[in-house]
Amino acid sequence: MRALRKLRPEPGAALVEVPVPAPGPGEVLLKVAAASICGTDQHIYQWNEWAAQRMRTPITFGHEVAGHVVATGPEVHHVKEGAFVSAEGHVFCGFCIQCRKGRMHICENLRILGVDFDGGFADYVVIPERNAWEVDPRIPPDVASIHDPFGNAVHTVFKGSDGDVPTSTVVVLGCGPIGLFAVGVARAAGARQVIAVEPNELRRGIAKQMGADVVVDPGSQDPVAAVREATDGHGAEVVLEISGVPAVVEQGTRMLAGGGRMALLGLPPGPVSLDLTGQVIFKEARIFGVTGREIFSTWMQMSVYLATGMVDPTPVITHRFGLDGFEEAFEVMSSGRSGKVILLPKRE
Amino acid sequence: MRALRKLRPEPGAALVEVPVPAPGPGEVLLKVAAASICGTDQHIYQWNEWAAQRMRTPITFGHEVAGHVVATGPEVHHVKEGAFVSAEGHVFCGFCIQCRKGRMHICENLRILGVDFDGGFADYVVIPERNAWEVDPRIPPDVASIHDPFGNAVHTVFKGSDGDVPTSTVVVLGCGPIGLFAVGVARAAGARQVIAVEPNELRRGIAKQMGADVVVDPGSQDPVAAVREATDGHGAEVVLEISGVPAVVEQGTRMLAGGGRMALLGLPPGPVSLDLTGQVIFKEARIFGVTGREIFSTWMQMSVYLATGMVDPTPVITHRFGLDGFEEAFEVMSSGRSGKVILLPKRE
Amino acid sequence: MRALRKLRPEPGAALVEVPVPAPGPGEVLLKVAAASICGTDQHIYQWNEWAAQRMRTPITFGHEVAGHVVATGPEVHHVKEGAFVSAEGHVFCGFCIQCRKGRMHICENLRILGVDFDGGFADYVVIPERNAWEVDPRIPPDVASIHDPFGNAVHTVFKGSDGDVPTSTVVVLGCGPIGLFAVGVARAAGARQVIAVEPNELRRGIAKQMGADVVVDPGSQDPVAAVREATDGHGAEVVLEISGVPAVVEQGTRMLAGGGRMALLGLPPGPVSLDLTGQVIFKEARIFGVTGREIFSTWMQMSVYLATGMVDPTPVITHRFGLDGFEEAFEVMSSGRSGKVILLPKRE
Amino acid sequence: MRALRKLRPEPGAALVEVPVPAPGPGEVLLKVAAASICGTDQHIYQWNEWAAQRMRTPITFGHEVAGHVVATGPEVHHVKEGAFVSAEGHVFCGFCIQCRKGRMHICENLRILGVDFDGGFADYVVIPERNAWEVDPRIPPDVASIHDPFGNAVHTVFKGSDGDVPTSTVVVLGCGPIGLFAVGVARAAGARQVIAVEPNELRRGIAKQMGADVVVDPGSQDPVAAVREATDGHGAEVVLEISGVPAVVEQGTRMLAGGGRMALLGLPPGPVSLDLTGQVIFKEARIFGVTGREIFSTWMQMSVYLATGMVDPTPVITHRFGLDGFEEAFEVMSSGRSGKVILLPKRE
Repeated sequence: MRALRKLRPEPGAALVEVPVPAPGPGEVLLKVAAASICGTDQHIYQWNEWAAQRMRTPITFGHEVAGHVVATGPEVHHVKEGAFVSAEGHVFCGFCIQCRKGRMHICENLRILGVDFDGGFADYVVIPERNAWEVDPRIPPDVASIHDPFGNAVHTVFKGSDGDVPTSTVVVLGCGPIGLFAVGVARAAGARQVIAVEPNELRRGIAKQMGADVVVDPGSQDPVAAVREATDGHGAEVVLEISGVPAVVEQGTRMLAGGGRMALLGLPPGPVSLDLTGQVIFKEARIFGVTGREIFSTWMQMSVYLATGMVDPTPVITHRFGLDGFEEAFEVMSSGRSGKVILLPKRE
Repeated sequence: MRALRKLRPEPGAALVEVPVPAPGPGEVLLKVAAASICGTDQHIYQWNEWAAQRMRTPITFGHEVAGHVVATGPEVHHVKEGAFVSAEGHVFCGFCIQCRKGRMHICENLRILGVDFDGGFADYVVIPERNAWEVDPRIPPDVASIHDPFGNAVHTVFKGSDGDVPTSTVVVLGCGPIGLFAVGVARAAGARQVIAVEPNELRRGIAKQMGADVVVDPGSQDPVAAVREATDGHGAEVVLEISGVPAVVEQGTRMLAGGGRMALLGLPPGPVSLDLTGQVIFKEARIFGVTGREIFSTWMQMSVYLATGMVDPTPVITHRFGLDGFEEAFEVMSSGRSGKVILLPKRE
Repeated sequence: MRALRKLRPEPGAALVEVPVPAPGPGEVLLKVAAASICGTDQHIYQWNEWAAQRMRTPITFGHEVAGHVVATGPEVHHVKEGAFVSAEGHVFCGFCIQCRKGRMHICENLRILGVDFDGGFADYVVIPERNAWEVDPRIPPDVASIHDPFGNAVHTVFKGSDGDVPTSTVVVLGCGPIGLFAVGVARAAGARQVIAVEPNELRRGIAKQMGADVVVDPGSQDPVAAVREATDGHGAEVVLEISGVPAVVEQGTRMLAGGGRMALLGLPPGPVSLDLTGQVIFKEARIFGVTGREIFSTWMQMSVYLATGMVDPTPVITHRFGLDGFEEAFEVMSSGRSGKVILLPKRE
Repeated sequence: MRALRKLRPEPGAALVEVPVPAPGPGEVLLKVAAASICGTDQHIYQWNEWAAQRMRTPITFGHEVAGHVVATGPEVHHVKEGAFVSAEGHVFCGFCIQCRKGRMHICENLRILGVDFDGGFADYVVIPERNAWEVDPRIPPDVASIHDPFGNAVHTVFKGSDGDVPTSTVVVLGCGPIGLFAVGVARAAGARQVIAVEPNELRRGIAKQMGADVVVDPGSQDPVAAVREATDGHGAEVVLEISGVPAVVEQGTRMLAGGGRMALLGLPPGPVSLDLTGQVIFKEARIFGVTGREIFSTWMQMSVYLATGMVDPTPVITHRFGLDGFEEAFEVMSSGRSGKVILLPKRE
């Protein structure tokens, strides 16, 4: 089969022939229908500092993957051959303190598909049975493949707001694919208004399609002032930080209303300096670190949104390529002229 | 009557004779039984930058006050003459968005006793009826007067832990009076263990009396390492930051276990730089700004602790002076050789 | 002025001339713009057992009222003459345990407008300033007058679901006006689907207009089976019981999914027999008693729904009469051929 | 090996020789150190209606079991030979909706140790690896074996109170072993006072040892009146119903304070008739069905209580027998002259 592999610790990747892997005990083999490209995959492709420290080569990467089960290993009792599934990429141990508390997504022994073991930019991929989430076969492959980042958005909206989205003003800071999904989820979850802040014009346009009531270009407007204006001066009850830019995190705290809640999903690359006294303590604001998705309660929620059509993620999906179009795919990702970019093995 | 007044915008204060004030509509007059000195009072006495910006002179200060109702104004229907009460020092409007949401303690029009209008370092003081909390007459005056800071501690323990104190390891950073009360409250609320971090030896000793299982001197031990050691490497589920020292806030985030919660009550005087990615986001930690006390649900809780004896605050009260001993009182406060210092008008 | 008064402890009421009341301290005088008729008003009109036990005559009734402030008593500091307000009919003491815990709506000394003192079926009415909720002057009088029952619906949806409406199947049992509002609120709050159960055909039609996905006539379909069918056999995560019929309450428990939540707002007139073991305990279901509205956090929420148009309550309002049309108004209420019926003093 | 088996569908049981079972994939073999007798085991022994409907013979019963791992099957990766473990008796599928939502204890495909497959009244027992909870080897076998019912108590205290035990009055209705454990847990979790209601004098005595502040004999005192008296007329914030007696459930609702919470763990054998209007709705009381234990967050909590000594369960353990003393063991269980009764295979 074909697999997009990082062969050596350096930028780039190669589409090579490798044997189809065999599922071990408790594992299933998927014929990949679609695999979408995450920002993390871009880091791996470009081989940034994080990738160089974290990963070992050679490895097939790609973790946002959907496909059909074509074989099952021993001790697989629930998922059947022929099932159409989307992969939860976080493989958890089930026995550490965090897993025992029901927080498998922050498992102390977390292993990540396409980072710690061979991933889904390939014709076939093996995942643990319990990481295979069955999706309605009527859902198209590209949508099936974006459950992972869509789940980040759902988790950020619910966890990051402490459940208080209905009737709240929700600000989304940063409209990459996850931010754009978050706009749609916040709207479907009953927000009073959704304000999207994003410098990229294309993405501001998609944010509108996803249901943003107000879009703010931070290049031409002060986002804090814009939020104050849209809220009669009170600020937003909920701020979802998905950019990872330190200065934007700090802005986010200044947009918060008294008693407001802020989710941090974007990963600042360095220290962030905050006015805790004025923007957090006297306001009794709450700040929630958010990572991954809850396994599998977030999946239950996102299935509702995707299977019922309450949220339509398709405006976010801007590009589709065959596996051998990977170079162009990563290029368009880097260009900023894209939303979500998806690799579809069959296309070729 | 006598009143300790800041007559001019400069350091110091004067004990002067002034007329006994008359309660207006909805107000009650208290004969002061005890008034404890808060860190804020020290700032006012020393006339620091905050005081210079915020306050107008002349004014009687002191907001942690208990006494007997000796007169009631018109439209007072619930509190009776003779009642023994402790004052909630936050006077709220009841009509702003925060009040309407039940967060009167972050009222947008908050006026503070002894800061915005004449306070309780005096023989008599006037407060709104609804700010008068009846206390059991068997509670001694000094304990009655510390409801305000004790309430800060109760609110920090409950709000700052999101209710998860039972079975958790709780770290208290900074053992001034509020931190010391927090040690006692966390213990009474069912913490697995309470770890107190404080450089002042006297206060570490009081922390032990209040129920700390482990006390850490940050001058001789790395507090983060000490917490890791006391928790088999996992970190603390709950960290209560009451020092307001930026470097300590940052340390606090590094002590947090995965899924941990941190309360911020101490007020950092400037920006605080945090590793949000490593210490908050990947851990899914939650950070809660905390201020004041919930009006009056925190008072309900603290009444249980103080009236039943579940928490004995008296080890924290180290000094008592008459009103005319105020100079010595403020001096001992500054020295660090004290816990809570209380002014008792009758004593003279 | 004219006032619709219960003069003697017997069925009926009389529209009589009485002096315009004067607002006392902390009170405001409203010129009534609209007053809607509640089921309670019907009980008073018909003088049922509850009314006979609870009320004293003579009294002007009517508690769902909106109007303009035309005079203010002493000690009124926030609400101004000319303001357009809707009345919170629950007058709370502010000093009992429940009020001190922020549950003013279950105040131990609750006094109810139009039940315990003169109400709003009149040209003018006096209410406490703090019970006057300012509404956007562009909201029409009839909508302004239904804040009270609309607030019941909002409170039931949020409290009764423990905040878990988004992505949940929500069943509304009983589609009188409050149930119909609840359909609209559940939809706006992000429910996956809303199922309305109601024997009255007219009201089932309004339920559809309010956004119900499925309407069930319990006369021709088993509601439990209908809910199972609409949920792939799992049952509903949220059931809102607004009928007060004991057999319907019992049915509601059988519709609940594992882990489901049920709100009880309807008032069963006698004991209700439940299979707690099978329908509550093994399912780990949660049952929430709900009454009134939270003062004023529910009002904040409902203002969002009504002021932004997120919920349009007008399909529920089926009849409007002048004050002197009261006999016809109560007749149409009794007939079941109505949704909400409103008295508009000006109309004559 | 010896095993206590129900050979035929009739009362009684036989201690017989059977082969030592072999652990399959993902399973471990325990050498039983202690197995405590649950009320369910008594139903099985006596072969009541529930047992006759639910169980198939022949089967070894007993599900509250602790022992040492002496062999592991294939695909066991975390639990090692030699580990001392207590068994979670609920075997969950991990794939149904409830499991996916993190509620494995109400799994739709739940299989129960000693009910649906061979249990622990034997020299050896096989359980799934993931149902083996490692306990500190210093914990004695009898205490290790009561994790299951102790976990019921912990789950009831926390889930049933919605987390509000600290500063609350907690009533425990019914002081069988689980109720007695609940007394100890409520005390350790920071209750203001714990009131235990129990007709059996021996058990009232143990309730006092476990930390009850007030014990009530319902044969000589009205429990509702007793709770009112102990709470200045207000009622209890938290009521834990562990008796399963319909009349006691109804009493429980009448003890509740406004805003109170009630847990239902006891299983009423038939319908329960409640005054929902007066005792639940107007009070805004909340009723929580509770079953089993959360897997494994409750285990994390109970480990804290049992491993640290915060709760000492030993006063509840009144009798210990060898396996061949089973007849006497079941007899003393039936007599009411016991707390927890434990079978210790080694003893013979």
